[in-house]
Amino acid sequence: MKNFTITKSRRIRSTPFTSRIEKQGVKSYSVYNHMLLPTVFESFEKEYLHLKEHVQVWDVSVQREIEISGEESYKLLQLMTCRDLSKAKIKKCYYAPLIDKKGNMINDPLIYKLGENKWRVSIADSDVILFAKGLAESGNIKAELIESNVYTLAIQGPKSEQLMSKVFGKSIIDLKFFNFEYFNFNGVKHIISKSGFSKQGGYEIHIENIESGLKLYDHLFEAGKEFNIKPGCPNIIERIESGLFSYGNDMDNKDNPFECGFDKYINLESDINFLGKESLKKIKIEGVKRKLMGVKINLNHIDLIKEERLHDKQNNEVGFLRSAVFSPKFKKVVGIAMINKKYCNENQDFYLSLDGKSINGKISNLPIV
Amino acid sequence: MKNFTITKSRRIRSTPFTSRIEKQGVKSYSVYNHMLLPTVFESFEKEYLHLKEHVQVWDVSVQREIEISGEESYKLLQLMTCRDLSKAKIKKCYYAPLIDKKGNMINDPLIYKLGENKWRVSIADSDVILFAKGLAESGNIKAELIESNVYTLAIQGPKSEQLMSKVFGKSIIDLKFFNFEYFNFNGVKHIISKSGFSKQGGYEIHIENIESGLKLYDHLFEAGKEFNIKPGCPNIIERIESGLFSYGNDMDNKDNPFECGFDKYINLESDINFLGKESLKKIKIEGVKRKLMGVKINLNHIDLIKEERLHDKQNNEVGFLRSAVFSPKFKKVVGIAMINKKYCNENQDFYLSLDGKSINGKISNLPIV
Repeated sequence: MKNFTITKSRRIRSTPFTSRIEKQGVKSYSVYNHMLLPTVFESFEKEYLHLKEHVQVWDVSVQREIEISGEESYKLLQLMTCRDLSKAKIKKCYYAPLIDKKGNMINDPLIYKLGENKWRVSIADSDVILFAKGLAESGNIKAELIESNVYTLAIQGPKSEQLMSKVFGKSIIDLKFFNFEYFNFNGVKHIISKSGFSKQGGYEIHIENIESGLKLYDHLFEAGKEFNIKPGCPNIIERIESGLFSYGNDMDNKDNPFECGFDKYINLESDINFLGKESLKKIKIEGVKRKLMGVKINLNHIDLIKEERLHDKQNNEVGFLRSAVFSPKFKKVVGIAMINKKYCNENQDFYLSLDGKSINGKISNLPIV
Repeated sequence: MKNFTITKSRRIRSTPFTSRIEKQGVKSYSVYNHMLLPTVFESFEKEYLHLKEHVQVWDVSVQREIEISGEESYKLLQLMTCRDLSKAKIKKCYYAPLIDKKGNMINDPLIYKLGENKWRVSIADSDVILFAKGLAESGNIKAELIESNVYTLAIQGPKSEQLMSKVFGKSIIDLKFFNFEYFNFNGVKHIISKSGFSKQGGYEIHIENIESGLKLYDHLFEAGKEFNIKPGCPNIIERIESGLFSYGNDMDNKDNPFECGFDKYINLESDINFLGKESLKKIKIEGVKRKLMGVKINLNHIDLIKEERLHDKQNNEVGFLRSAVFSPKFKKVVGIAMINKKYCNENQDFYLSLDGKSINGKISNLPIV
């Protein structure tokens, strides 16, 4: 695929760490929530192999955190998600599909409960604050909404625990998955959660004090030398193999959470009030017509920039491929596809027509193993 | 400034014309409404000089068109804007600041009235559909909302009228500014408006039939040879000199429409109902504290990727520079800045501290002449 440069401007915001990652050799960016998201330092494959063995620091400031506070903050937040947050606990994180009245996906954030009436919604790539503003302003819901000045560093990889306990002390080892706590660095407190967009283990540091955050960034690379630390970014190979979905790539506002396999985050039986409840009840009764699945395709390279139709031998539609990349582990292309119900079987054959050729692939469960 | 490539994916959508502009030599992209916006073919300066003399075709598909229809479509749309649309006429376009309850900018679209209960909102870079969804779903407003499958080609430059009358017939010359009409190309009707993001004259063709749109694209370049037609894109030099603001660059959700000089689109006296009415009344009584102005700076190059503080000789804050580029016309850098009220005077001196140097500049009215 031909390369094109990215034109920077104030509208495509830099992060507090942009100048550092540029010195460290970032080559390519995507744009996510109107902000620069690094995508490549050396190559997808080199970073994939390193991530699975060592530890990386990712500038994921693009995970903008929308703060919802005030006496009706829970009411507003609950209105947007099918996940029951009525018993949510402070210092815990909740992965939650946000949906509209039709039951279609708006975003899939991780929600942090900071206090009884204070939440932070760490969002995927869509302007959730505008949806929340619309709901609050039209429905006269008493909640304050701001995009926080929080910039997140993800520390990911199997050696992340060693690095983090070296920097923040042994107690960080006790932090459980999707919990967060306040940790001290040079006299400044930072929220750290056991979370991150990989399945290699790790943490996310939510930087509010930028000066301290920059010192911490440099310190992590110093302290991490013995763990072969490198700068990195969410890795498309690792996240596809692990079955981690990307909003805008794998699903969007035309898909519902059942189709995304988010069943365990859909609470239709509880008495919570959310916008898409009636729609989701109806979808549940009718049953979904398609579902996100993994795929393996007999190719050693692919450049996927739009969804591609998958078909069977008789050219019946099997589904649509939405993300795909070559996997060094499987020695073929792996991907995420929205598959029509009747084809949702492990090892189901399908074909992809690309550049006049018909290429064979097989449906896989997620994660891809 | 160092160059970085852009990583494409389904989330950063291509347009129906992407493969064509890539054959025609596009070099660089920005991302706008989750879609690729071409920014450079040869250089800002070459395209600026060509645009002011000849005619260009721009792929501005990123101007996503949100269609609002249904019996309460006007009510919903009016709720979002301070511009009185109660007497809006079919086949006319309305530039309208969209604002939240605090009176701050959400977007600054061009609104097309297609029918009594059918509008298209051609948006700048923010997810207006989510704001509208929130308002409609919380307030039980009877309106349907979709992002239309419309992709816009802008035909801009002083020779655009000659080209367009050659392709669509002489009657297009009668089309008045910010009006639109249906025009035929090979048996397919396209909405064409007299509009566009330059002050060099031109049209926007709103493509719904992609097959016809692609044929039209190629035909425009054939028919345009005699007018020295070239592919182009919104040009930062031309738009700054002309005083055309870019949402996300020059203003954002921290600014109100008075500060942007949109006074003539703020109708506080009429009895229309919009969210930010009380806030804007208050701001009007108190008076604005700052305003968007033009600037000229004694530099022959600038890379501006965030706002930069401007100050006077005593280091008092004058304002913030938000967009800037070298102008071949003025042989210095021109820009758009949010300037504190007391400094809002033509030819007011200010200083910009950049790389340890203090550079002199002068405030200018808009457009910059």
